[in-house]
Amino acid sequence: MIEKKHRGFKYFLGHRSPTEILIFGFALFILFGAFLLMLPVSAQSGQATGFVNALFTSTSSVCVTGLVVVDTGTYWSVFGQAVICFLVEIGGLGFMSFATMFFVLAGKRITIKDRILIQSSVNMDSLSGIVRFVKYIFFSAIAIQAIGAILLSFVFVPDFGLTTGIGFSVFHSVTSFCNAGFDLMGDYKSLTGYVDNFMVNFVICTLIVLGGLGFAVTSDLIYVRKFRKMSMHSKVVLVSTGFLLIAGFVLFFIFEFNNPKTMGNLSWHGKFLASMFQSVTPRTAGCNTIDVAGLTKPSIFLTMLLMFVGASPGSTGGGVKTTTVAIVLMTVGSVLYGKKDVIAFKRTILGPLIRRAISILVIASGLVFFMIFVLLCTEPQASFDVVVFEVLSAFGTVGLTMGLTPHLSIAGKLAISLTMFIGRLGPLTIAYAISRSEKRARENVGTIKLPEGNIMIG
Amino acid sequence: MIEKKHRGFKYFLGHRSPTEILIFGFALFILFGAFLLMLPVSAQSGQATGFVNALFTSTSSVCVTGLVVVDTGTYWSVFGQAVICFLVEIGGLGFMSFATMFFVLAGKRITIKDRILIQSSVNMDSLSGIVRFVKYIFFSAIAIQAIGAILLSFVFVPDFGLTTGIGFSVFHSVTSFCNAGFDLMGDYKSLTGYVDNFMVNFVICTLIVLGGLGFAVTSDLIYVRKFRKMSMHSKVVLVSTGFLLIAGFVLFFIFEFNNPKTMGNLSWHGKFLASMFQSVTPRTAGCNTIDVAGLTKPSIFLTMLLMFVGASPGSTGGGVKTTTVAIVLMTVGSVLYGKKDVIAFKRTILGPLIRRAISILVIASGLVFFMIFVLLCTEPQASFDVVVFEVLSAFGTVGLTMGLTPHLSIAGKLAISLTMFIGRLGPLTIAYAISRSEKRARENVGTIKLPEGNIMIG
Ligand SMILES: [K+]
Ligand SMILES: [K+]
Repeated sequence: MIEKKHRGFKYFLGHRSPTEILIFGFALFILFGAFLLMLPVSAQSGQATGFVNALFTSTSSVCVTGLVVVDTGTYWSVFGQAVICFLVEIGGLGFMSFATMFFVLAGKRITIKDRILIQSSVNMDSLSGIVRFVKYIFFSAIAIQAIGAILLSFVFVPDFGLTTGIGFSVFHSVTSFCNAGFDLMGDYKSLTGYVDNFMVNFVICTLIVLGGLGFAVTSDLIYVRKFRKMSMHSKVVLVSTGFLLIAGFVLFFIFEFNNPKTMGNLSWHGKFLASMFQSVTPRTAGCNTIDVAGLTKPSIFLTMLLMFVGASPGSTGGGVKTTTVAIVLMTVGSVLYGKKDVIAFKRTILGPLIRRAISILVIASGLVFFMIFVLLCTEPQASFDVVVFEVLSAFGTVGLTMGLTPHLSIAGKLAISLTMFIGRLGPLTIAYAISRSEKRARENVGTIKLPEGNIMIG
Repeated sequence: MIEKKHRGFKYFLGHRSPTEILIFGFALFILFGAFLLMLPVSAQSGQATGFVNALFTSTSSVCVTGLVVVDTGTYWSVFGQAVICFLVEIGGLGFMSFATMFFVLAGKRITIKDRILIQSSVNMDSLSGIVRFVKYIFFSAIAIQAIGAILLSFVFVPDFGLTTGIGFSVFHSVTSFCNAGFDLMGDYKSLTGYVDNFMVNFVICTLIVLGGLGFAVTSDLIYVRKFRKMSMHSKVVLVSTGFLLIAGFVLFFIFEFNNPKTMGNLSWHGKFLASMFQSVTPRTAGCNTIDVAGLTKPSIFLTMLLMFVGASPGSTGGGVKTTTVAIVLMTVGSVLYGKKDVIAFKRTILGPLIRRAISILVIASGLVFFMIFVLLCTEPQASFDVVVFEVLSAFGTVGLTMGLTPHLSIAGKLAISLTMFIGRLGPLTIAYAISRSEKRARENVGTIKLPEGNIMIG
């Protein structure tokens, strides 16, 4: 009987597309996390947690978002916090690459089917070297997080004692690298207590940026080193990420310089660190060192735009991705300057890639618009900016909030959970659906005519 | 001396591109309007009006927007109102097509240079028949507005007496057809007094829609009649306009059904008319029969989206244009369904047109984002939704407001004036700049390979 059931499940899996298995796996894993968080042992109070709040927290963890309906530091027990940390780590490194590692370690053979599965979860174009790549992801990610935790312990152990300090260091290193905005500081205050602490700002920003560049790019940074010799994808990611970080830093510095609610009372040193952190965190990290609701309106709007753009593909971050926006902007530039082709770093960007980038941008905008409509209906008390901010934060799996999350209605919690889920899987699955349909289109034509500049998007 | 000056001006004109002359002409005309409105005779009070308010009103008139810093019905004298009506008519029919008509009537020869000038102002692709087309624009526009005025006088003459009634009928017919949201009802109340008046709703909506379809399409509607035989451009315009009107109607009906501030207390008949009007007006018309600030939040958001899309190219309306959005959405559709080409109504839409549409969308978004930043800085008291609404209304030359316009700071008034100016000329000039650079690109390649589906955008 069990044998038959097992065969039935195998049959079921064998007839699903990789995308379907990925979605199914994520959903199952979120439900599993929600189950663990509902247990009385997960809550500080020793009481069982309701399904909606547990589901919301689990979704937020697995989708590496960090939006919270209850305060992570005071509501959950150490066990509950460990569950969240575990869900974030698996969500961040990718459900499938984790599973593959498990197969590799257990000595199992990786089939072509498995490889396609992994490919669609890490968003790589070629099947060759995929297993090696996943191994690399896993070990380098663990190494980076370990270093981050050690550095953070120099601050957190003196502040919180040995056991709690080490726990805090590990937790914040994991959530930072995975671009999940959870924190254990209590009272929804995130890292505001460390606004002018150099070590905390430096370590956490570095972890966020490394996590958000994507594994292909960090690999190029570590092994290739010279910019000229890097892949075109890495070049585009590094230039656009650098531009966004610097522009964000300068604008936050200007907008918040005299704002007493945020950094008006800080020293120049503190203002510098705070602007840097606020420029880094909307790129889907989600923790904050100054109060988001206290930001000036231009800063709020800037944060919204940065959250929509998000991180780079194949990373732990969300959003429509830097490369998608870069390709669209390069296209506009080529049109304005009357160029026949879209050219970047001496490579032509072909029509299909451009159309793919536009599709991701348009579909993402459509989903965001739809969810804004839903939230405006389910949360009639919330003002417009708060709702737009919340939806962009959920869709980009950012985790920043102007304070709406804990006050959401049940319908609102479910809508935001769904938005996080679509935000995490959407771009991936859209990209997959597009690349599959494109392969079909390509087969219709025969061959591609020009050498293509290869950039991951979505 | 005068002779020399004249030659100097001719020399100046001869060495400007059509786009530059168009921008120059619009700016000059706006200044002329501002001068007229500053005169004591223009104001009800008999006092001279300040430059900023006069400039704002003149810009709003020439750019057929309808945003007002002072109430049109009570602040301006009959002379001032006539000036506004005149500025709207010229702004609506296009400064250049009006000038050409003048040349034609004066028996002057139309040079190729003049034709290019007109072409860039009415956004047509071919030079042939341009003079005939401008004549057609002029006479059919006057005829439609005359019929509108006569129909409106059946309501306005009984309500306001013979002289005022006829004046009101002419004024509202002109501003409706030209998609300028000015009204003479007083106290910024627009057409709220006529929310359930069938005649007013029917006539004004028809005028707005006819004005917003664009002259090429109304021409097809009048002379070709059969949908199958119309140009591809007309087909795309009619389908997308129809879709937007119906979708807007249904959504407003749902969102506002029970809202006591808008149409909750109306009969079914009134609700039907009010939903229809609110669906038509964001397509850059700008007058309203229910209080905009009283709309539910989902309706506000829907209005924002409709204002950004705007009317169709070659019309009196603004926005990024229906065809631009249609082309981008068709592109996304073709990508998702794995089609090699983007096909609409049995014609291929080529890469250059797609890239052009994307450019207009991206540049428009960029300008809107920039102006939102500016207004958030100059109007720190205004809430986020009010600012976004105001900028979208100005950029789309719509004229609806949530109440911010009369309370704008001097800097805010100038910023909104500039936004209206860019909003009116921007898409035109962008489209022109693009088509010129595209011609250059085309010359680089040699010839176009495929038959192109010809659609005006921007
Ligand atoms: K996050
Ligand atoms: K208007």
